[in-house]
Amino acid sequence: MTDRPGAPTRRGFLKAGLAGGGALVAGGAAAQEPDPLITEKQPWAQMWGDGVDATPYGMPIEYESDVIRRNVGWLTADTISSVNFSPIHALDGTITPQGCAFERHHSGAIDLPKEDYRLMINGLVETPLVFTYADLERFPRVNHTYFLECAANSGMEWAGAQLNGAQFTHGMIHNMEYSGVPLRMLLEEAGVKPEGKWVYVEGADASSNGRSIPLDKALDDCLVAFKANGEALRKEHGYPVRLCVPGWEGNMWIKWLRRVEVTTEAVESREETSKYTDTLADGTSRKWTWVMDAKSVITSPSPQSPITHGPGPLVITGLAWSGRGAISRVDVSRDGGKSWQTARLAQPGQNMALSRFYLDIDWDGSEMLLQSRAMDETGYVQPTKNALREIRGLNSIYHNNGIQTWWVKANGEAENVEVS
Amino acid sequence: MTDRPGAPTRRGFLKAGLAGGGALVAGGAAAQEPDPLITEKQPWAQMWGDGVDATPYGMPIEYESDVIRRNVGWLTADTISSVNFSPIHALDGTITPQGCAFERHHSGAIDLPKEDYRLMINGLVETPLVFTYADLERFPRVNHTYFLECAANSGMEWAGAQLNGAQFTHGMIHNMEYSGVPLRMLLEEAGVKPEGKWVYVEGADASSNGRSIPLDKALDDCLVAFKANGEALRKEHGYPVRLCVPGWEGNMWIKWLRRVEVTTEAVESREETSKYTDTLADGTSRKWTWVMDAKSVITSPSPQSPITHGPGPLVITGLAWSGRGAISRVDVSRDGGKSWQTARLAQPGQNMALSRFYLDIDWDGSEMLLQSRAMDETGYVQPTKNALREIRGLNSIYHNNGIQTWWVKANGEAENVEVS
Repeated sequence: MTDRPGAPTRRGFLKAGLAGGGALVAGGAAAQEPDPLITEKQPWAQMWGDGVDATPYGMPIEYESDVIRRNVGWLTADTISSVNFSPIHALDGTITPQGCAFERHHSGAIDLPKEDYRLMINGLVETPLVFTYADLERFPRVNHTYFLECAANSGMEWAGAQLNGAQFTHGMIHNMEYSGVPLRMLLEEAGVKPEGKWVYVEGADASSNGRSIPLDKALDDCLVAFKANGEALRKEHGYPVRLCVPGWEGNMWIKWLRRVEVTTEAVESREETSKYTDTLADGTSRKWTWVMDAKSVITSPSPQSPITHGPGPLVITGLAWSGRGAISRVDVSRDGGKSWQTARLAQPGQNMALSRFYLDIDWDGSEMLLQSRAMDETGYVQPTKNALREIRGLNSIYHNNGIQTWWVKANGEAENVEVS
Repeated sequence: MTDRPGAPTRRGFLKAGLAGGGALVAGGAAAQEPDPLITEKQPWAQMWGDGVDATPYGMPIEYESDVIRRNVGWLTADTISSVNFSPIHALDGTITPQGCAFERHHSGAIDLPKEDYRLMINGLVETPLVFTYADLERFPRVNHTYFLECAANSGMEWAGAQLNGAQFTHGMIHNMEYSGVPLRMLLEEAGVKPEGKWVYVEGADASSNGRSIPLDKALDDCLVAFKANGEALRKEHGYPVRLCVPGWEGNMWIKWLRRVEVTTEAVESREETSKYTDTLADGTSRKWTWVMDAKSVITSPSPQSPITHGPGPLVITGLAWSGRGAISRVDVSRDGGKSWQTARLAQPGQNMALSRFYLDIDWDGSEMLLQSRAMDETGYVQPTKNALREIRGLNSIYHNNGIQTWWVKANGEAENVEVS
């Protein structure tokens, strides 16, 4: 499914007409050098720009100032225990820069200097230990790119199409390259006793946000991370140390990780009983629904990224991911799920990381009901929202991985809708 | 060569003693919960942190304010036509965040709004064309992670060890995930005439920084990129559009790309005659030395990243790359090249992208002459600086890919030295 785009020789771009200034250069002679009228209008070609000391640490250019995290005021009682969303409608590729990567915290992003950082391993271990940050730097390190998705991502959509933009419907996600120490190594250093079957992990913030994780997962691929995308974690991402729990819901990726306690049973904490369970139609709840199943969304065109040109070549693009492994295929429908075309993956699917997909079409200018459908290496196929509702009812908040529909109108604008 | 770190059960961390607060928790009972004295000293656990609207676009935390690009005042006549260096000594993993990624420009970083952006394809083509930014967005896109290294990286080291820090000796490099349109597609859209054998590419800044590229390379993997690490290019990286010329010297990666002219011959511009050629001992110059040969550097320990603890477990880490393909292996020497150990690659080598390597050792506390030696998939082995000097003499500025030596002293400090 992964390949280079086909050779586009005479592929119709000219036939369809290019937008705006896209045009044939008039005349053979003029074609040899830039139009002097254009040059006169280019002040940037006639003066100095900024020197290399202008931005010791650079920020996005002012023209991109709308590509930021956004929160939704009404979603939570306050913005300190709340969430903001990655601007996925405006990004491409797969890496999420830390500066605009989704964040959620339950008692605010705390200020914890490295010097004051401590990580305790206790409970059912041979030798309880406390590590400093400097201690952690002495353990063997690994690097992995993983997605983090909040269990509540798309949660507002259970009852029907609510939020008008991919940033808000699917933006509780990011994808970064982490560097850190396998949790397994720290647990082995302390020596897990045979009766230990779970770990309880908590953060140094006031909420502590404690969660229980089966020991098998803790020993498998959990990562005590101190860098993301090469540099130190940002404050709001858990500086100086967070836990990565690959493929599992973001709430378990404890920020400001301060303690890992080995236990015989799950703690059944607030965060895994009254929250982060899925209430079914009969009032009972599914619990331990940690894995984020395969999911995808078209990021452009979408409500915040409308089509700004007429008929002709159009790039449809989006993101796909699975907590159970690599994405193997993504299909795109333009007619609300009646027919499907296989999209092109920009790179082969990576284990528990975002995949970028593209479908290059010749748009005829008529309206579309755009959908994407992810498949992962286990053979799992992303379901429709209605298929999920048939099993889980309408009371859930979490784990909505149903197929998203954007109604793209003939004028290029898009809207969040449902198809029956 | 790529694998998970070995299971470190009882691997000597305790035996060697952990630094600072790293310690056994006293007593069996106390081990079950955090020391109340420590808790009292944790103000962050007792108050709100920042809300999610605090950082619509986040910056690194204040404690990391030294992890920035730095320039060297004396290197160029001014800072507008100059260079700054990535803080590679403080980064981990492979991705370089745009905010601290090396940049070099010849007449300053210009302010070019997307709306005013134009790209001309002219010269020996059937149909000269001018594209707007919106036009480019309609072509099929690809994603690739590539390193960009300035040909002058390590150039100050030809005459001997000069600069005391990996940031300054090897920091003219970055590694980002690019999204954009293959240059091939734009050239095919214009229709290259049979007599076309080269392209001449130039930027919209006052320097224009024109370079000639053989048509084969232009049609192979060159990329007209508009995103890096998912988001728009930063101003200083060529917003809104730059050229990627994978594996080839950074000067050819034209920022603010405004024109691609198909020609029969190379233009022999200033940037490829008086600059970016390698002056040999006899005064003649090697030209067309575009490919960046395999190279590596240990980023920690290094002069800016000394060892801050005593004997015992120590992570030696660094970066390796090759313009001819993927890194296949990196060896590390602790005795100035007399003996070598094979390091662990954090991930399998990627084509023309940075690789991170680690060597986990039990440091005995004695001084070391640390070196790394990269090998790529072609079988090429990174040479010593002296081996390069034997062939190229001492007059060159560019293309110094010789093995770097850090003298790590018993007190943990490191210094840039040469070994004979």
